[in-house]
Parts: sequence; structure tokens; C-alpha cells
Amino acid sequence: MRPTLFLTIGDPAGVGPEVTVRALASGAVGGAARLVAVGDRRVLERAAGWTGASVQFSPYDPEREVPPAAGAVELVDLANMDLAACSPGKLDSGCGKAAYAYIEEAVRRCLRGEGEGLVTAPINKRALNAAGLHFAGHTEILATLCGAGKVAMLLVAPRLRVAHVSTHCSLAQAIERAKPERIRQVALLTVEALRDMGIDQPRLAVAGLNPHAGEGGLFGDEEARYIAPAVEELRALGLQVSGPEPPDTVFLRTLQGQFDAVLAMYHDQGHIPIKLLGFNEGVNVTLGLPIVRTSVDHGTAFDIAGTGRADAGSMVAAIALAARLVAARAARRAATI
Amino acid sequence: MRPTLFLTIGDPAGVGPEVTVRALASGAVGGAARLVAVGDRRVLERAAGWTGASVQFSPYDPEREVPPAAGAVELVDLANMDLAACSPGKLDSGCGKAAYAYIEEAVRRCLRGEGEGLVTAPINKRALNAAGLHFAGHTEILATLCGAGKVAMLLVAPRLRVAHVSTHCSLAQAIERAKPERIRQVALLTVEALRDMGIDQPRLAVAGLNPHAGEGGLFGDEEARYIAPAVEELRALGLQVSGPEPPDTVFLRTLQGQFDAVLAMYHDQGHIPIKLLGFNEGVNVTLGLPIVRTSVDHGTAFDIAGTGRADAGSMVAAIALAARLVAARAARRAATI
Repeated sequence: MRPTLFLTIGDPAGVGPEVTVRALASGAVGGAARLVAVGDRRVLERAAGWTGASVQFSPYDPEREVPPAAGAVELVDLANMDLAACSPGKLDSGCGKAAYAYIEEAVRRCLRGEGEGLVTAPINKRALNAAGLHFAGHTEILATLCGAGKVAMLLVAPRLRVAHVSTHCSLAQAIERAKPERIRQVALLTVEALRDMGIDQPRLAVAGLNPHAGEGGLFGDEEARYIAPAVEELRALGLQVSGPEPPDTVFLRTLQGQFDAVLAMYHDQGHIPIKLLGFNEGVNVTLGLPIVRTSVDHGTAFDIAGTGRADAGSMVAAIALAARLVAARAARRAATI
Repeated sequence: MRPTLFLTIGDPAGVGPEVTVRALASGAVGGAARLVAVGDRRVLERAAGWTGASVQFSPYDPEREVPPAAGAVELVDLANMDLAACSPGKLDSGCGKAAYAYIEEAVRRCLRGEGEGLVTAPINKRALNAAGLHFAGHTEILATLCGAGKVAMLLVAPRLRVAHVSTHCSLAQAIERAKPERIRQVALLTVEALRDMGIDQPRLAVAGLNPHAGEGGLFGDEEARYIAPAVEELRALGLQVSGPEPPDTVFLRTLQGQFDAVLAMYHDQGHIPIKLLGFNEGVNVTLGLPIVRTSVDHGTAFDIAGTGRADAGSMVAAIALAARLVAARAARRAATI
């Protein structure tokens, strides 16, 4: 049986519904996985109208997979939005609450065995907060809903993969978090994900924290105290891990083929090169959850919501990568049994 | 009279002599400025042999500019190297000492009025240290020799310009250095340099320090406490300054034409995007010196020194930019008198 991926449509006032229907109607996805949208039917139909995407929706039934008609999309319809109260591009606490409900529903279904993974369209943190839901973002929501303590963010652009030791915290806190246990943990999660992407012997570059990776202690000692020991321990496990590498050249060296992925020490160290290279096709992968989870690499883009102009490239890439990861996990499980 | 630029050849064991002769022989530079190499004749002749560059050297005489024969290069020959003791790619304290002597000589001549600017080929910090010269790099040497207290690094790639609030210090120290006075100072130096590059009303983006520029205080308060006030003061001077901008997207937005330059808060924030985009044609400009100074954006590249393979793109770009900057300074001085 094909694995199932739930697609949450994100904040109804953002571009999430548009990129979801556009990706589903494009024919560029599907096949390898059963795709089920989780959202509100009227919101999706309105988005289909804006984008010109031709999609029909049929109710999702976990017990039987209806052979989908051309363009038909299975949907879990939470029917929780009043279109009149949901203007594109307008921050609204009701939209924040609805976006949270889609994620909660999709995770619940995954955890009870209906699905293997989740692809998420963008939510708006301020709308979420306005609804009294105080999370820094998807990752924190998912970690809470799944009871996962140790998660990490992997960004995948067409030519570059970057995992992050820390993300949504101040730079000063990020320095504190770059400790051997965490570095080892994220490195191991990254190696597992790279194997699921078909790279059997991944070559991982661990970036330094300081300029020139500390220049032998001249510009900081975190490399010698924390990063180098973590790299040594990873190597002792037989893994191909290099570092600490000078942060300003490690991304170019990775593009040139020296490494399969970079482990960044903080949010912007990894996000700056990814955003520069892969703005329209980047995918965000959450590592360390019991389920596969990928996401688009952009926000709700309120400025163009409702215009039908939002590019679905990142959503198409996110669905394709999730399908690949769930297939690999299934194969691994089958091999273990 | 044309302004004079001194070209220091860098560490004799690195690729500096090769990129210098290759740039001088290429015909891609010169015209706007009088170019004078500072180094050792035998080192340069050996490099010319490796690269296949056709150059003749004639002794520099500040009193009269000899109309250069085709391919003739004026040279201040310090004759301080023994070729037998200077193998390409080999770290050597004698080479470090010689490289320092070239810089000292060129600066001395500039400060006594013989020249307006300096273009430097790469030196090797370890060779310098082995010679007992304890500097973090060119910038620190130049600040010391010129008695300049407040210098800053501007990197110029084909499509991106980035100035730095701090460079060669630990990330923890960089956080401490991102204070209003320093931000204002580097911003003003940057605006002046952009005007000298022909941009009359430069649009400067000031990057945040933290992810998402602090996300309204959720990920750090340095934006609200230090960076936003500095931006306000700069705006009050009538300058077009934006920020604090989210660091992970500001470089792409600059590439797309929204800004003329970015002010980065620390070394890697600015170096990561520049190295990714402009590895072969980047130029390093030191702001805040009494003289113009540009430099190649690469190191001594000991691994390819002596092979004649080093690309002179960065050196050509560094000479062209220095020529432009000295001409603009001369025009400004003429307008003031």
C-alpha cells in the first residue's frame, strides 16, 4: 500500500491554500504517495479560483483509497472558516486558530497510523499568537504534538543541504547551544535523513562557530572546546564528518561537491546561503519527529495572497521530498522486520 | 597628473606574485592610474615565467613618470628575497618578513605623498607570525602604519557590496561590538565609499544581528537596543538607511536591486554570501584609512602557488576599483579647494 502524506493548507489568509492547490493540480506530484489535504473546502475552492488551478475535492476515507479521478484531491474538510471573515492578506486570529487546527488534525491522524508524513503550507506566527497559541513556529508545534524532545531543522535547496544546531533563538543563545551533545545529535539525525535521500555514505561538513573556524583559537575557542571533540566522536562512529570548517567557504565547497551537507551552528549561518541559492525551491525538513515532515521554505506572503501569483515550486519540492523520505523509511522498516 | 597606486606583491611563497604579474600583463588594468609594483624583482620574474605573462620591469622614480614601454611595469625593488630560500607553497618566516616590508614601504611612500592608494596581494598570517609580526592581517597592519583608529572592511563582489561592523574576533565579541557608535561609524564610511563608486544617493540596508532581526524581541533584543537607534540617527542625517533587516533575506533583496550595500553585523554574516557569489572577482576595501586600499579577496593559496594557475580576476578587479576610488577622492578634493 502507498504511504499517506497529509498536506496542511496553512493560514487561510496567506498563500498556503494557493500553493497547495497549484501543486496538487500541477501533476508534478503524486504517484509515490497518497496525498490528502487537510483544511477547509471553501478556502481551497476560493484559492483554486484565484490560481486557475483545476481541482475537485473528494472526502478522505482512511478505510478505502478511492481511485482519484483526474484532478481529484482527497480532503479532510474541517469546515472551520467563514470566508467572509477571512480576507487574503489580512492578519486574523481566527485564521491562526484554524491553521493550528489543521496541523493538530493531521498529526493526530499520523500518530494513530493513518499516515506516514506531513507537508505543511506556511502559518503566520502573529496570527497564531493573536489566537493565544504561543509557539515560535511549526517545528515547536510539531515537537509538542508528537512529544519529541530533540528536533532539528534541515533546509534542502536544489544544490545545498544545511542542518542547524539551533534556529529560533538569539545569536547569544545560539552560541550557548553549540555544545557537543547537541552537535552530535543533529549530525546523527542529518546522516539518517541523507541516507533516506539515497546517499549511503554521506559526507558531512561541520561548520565552525567563529570566523575562520576560530583561526587556531585567535578568534574564539568554541571550536577547540566543543566542535572539534564532537567531530572526533562522530568520526569514531565511522562517519565521514569533517570540521570544524571555516564558515565562509564551506557552503561554496559543498556546492562544488566536496560535501553532501553542512551542519550550521546557528540560524543565519545556514539560512543566508540557502535563501541566496534556493528561494523558490527550498524545502524545510524537521528531523527527530516520529513522522516525516517537510514544509515550504517561505512564509504566508500576505502581500501577494489572493492574487494567484504565488509560486508553488517550494510546495512541489516539499511534497516530492516527503514522498521520497516516507518511502525510504518504509523500506528501512521492511528491512528490519 | 595621474594618481599613483602601489601594488604590494604579498607573500613571495604564495600566489601574490603570480596574480600581480598576470594582472599587470593582461592589459585589463591601467590607464586611469600609474601602477607601481612593490616587491622583489627576482620573485616577480620567476612568477612571470610560471604564468607565461610577458612583463618587463623598470625602476620606479617618483620624480618622473617614464612613458611605459608596452608591458613595462614600474617597480620598487626591495631585493630582500633569496629565491633559493623561497619555495612556492612553503611557509617561511623570511617570506612573512619580506611581505611585511613591501606593505611598510608602500604605505611610507603613500604617506609622504608619492601615491594615493595601495592594492595588496595576499599575505600569510602564519608566516607573518613566524617572523614575529603579530597582526591579524593586512587591515591591522595598515591601521597601525597609518595611525588610523577606526577602520572597517567593505567586500565588493560583482553584484553585492557588504561592509562589516566587526571582522576578526570571536562571534561572542562581535555581539559586544555591534553598538550604535560603531554601527554609525561604519555606515558613514560605507556611504562615503559608495559615493566614490559613483552612487550619489546610496541605499544602505543594515542587517539585524539575530534571526529574523530579533522577531520583535522574541529572539534577542540587540535590534531594539542598539541597531534600530543607530538606523534612526543615520536617517536623521538624511541618509537612505533601512533596517534592522532580517539577515537571511537581505542579501537576496540587495541582489534584486533593493539596496546598494548591506551593513553586516559580523564577519560571517557578510562573508558567507560574498564568498558564495563572487569567489573569483571579490575585492576587499579598507575604509577609514587616509589612503585608498583595496585587496584581493583570496588567500595565498599555497596549494597552487608556483603552478601559474592562479586566477587574476580578483586582482584585476582590486586594481580597477582602487583606480576608481583614487580618482573620485581627487575629484572631491579638487571640488573642496
